[in-house]
Amino acid sequence: MTIEFESLSDPKLRESGDVLAPAFNADGLVTCVVTDADDGSVLMLAHMNAEALSLTLETGIAHFWSRSRKSLWKKGETSGNEISVIDIRTDCDQDAIWIAGRIAGNGVACHTGEKSCFFRRITSNGNGGFHLKPTD
Amino acid sequence: MTIEFESLSDPKLRESGDVLAPAFNADGLVTCVVTDADDGSVLMLAHMNAEALSLTLETGIAHFWSRSRKSLWKKGETSGNEISVIDIRTDCDQDAIWIAGRIAGNGVACHTGEKSCFFRRITSNGNGGFHLKPTD
Repeated sequence: MTIEFESLSDPKLRESGDVLAPAFNADGLVTCVVTDADDGSVLMLAHMNAEALSLTLETGIAHFWSRSRKSLWKKGETSGNEISVIDIRTDCDQDAIWIAGRIAGNGVACHTGEKSCFFRRITSNGNGGFHLKPTD
Repeated sequence: MTIEFESLSDPKLRESGDVLAPAFNADGLVTCVVTDADDGSVLMLAHMNAEALSLTLETGIAHFWSRSRKSLWKKGETSGNEISVIDIRTDCDQDAIWIAGRIAGNGVACHTGEKSCFFRRITSNGNGGFHLKPTD
């Protein structure tokens, strides 16, 4: 069931106190960063609408909103790589969520087959430009 | 100087290979997550336009685009809490950036005075609802 989240229009109230009042954007979304609860690496960045955030809180399994498919997205539903929420926090202005989680299945977060979506480092190409290099 | 970034419309090309081709959104922005290079904690989430990403790459100091002020934002310019880039990566579809950094000055990333913007945990209130609790 989708939680009826509080709404706090005053930024000062949103960034202090104990009221969970997600600041959904014009598309009804907050941004969510997922890190590996064990090694601290950033696994992925995705978005949540109120339903996805509700399901995440109620089930302990990360749910998102797929902007490309325009649908609720239970990560790992087909791959088996569900993300169990170990810790979940919001930021000062409550327009972002941080989940420290553990991935089930084969431990892969990225649809490319890499563990993390952030598998390429931005590096100088020596000519004033920049290109990407695999991290491992 | 703002780098003239490559543009790759084919998602398959963006998520493989070595071409840095940020997928700026309709507002010309990519999302950036900043973690502490030493302890791995998530410090903040912000946005970058092409100029901010260029300056970040060229100077090694994190620059963002302030959506509220609608202006370039060199984080720490007034507070002294600049973020030095230790590692910078992009994700599979290149619409997000991950910076592992070190904060100068008093080591505080959040404007509230907390080290991290994510200083509140979402916890059950025992009545089927959720509220926020300080993490430390």
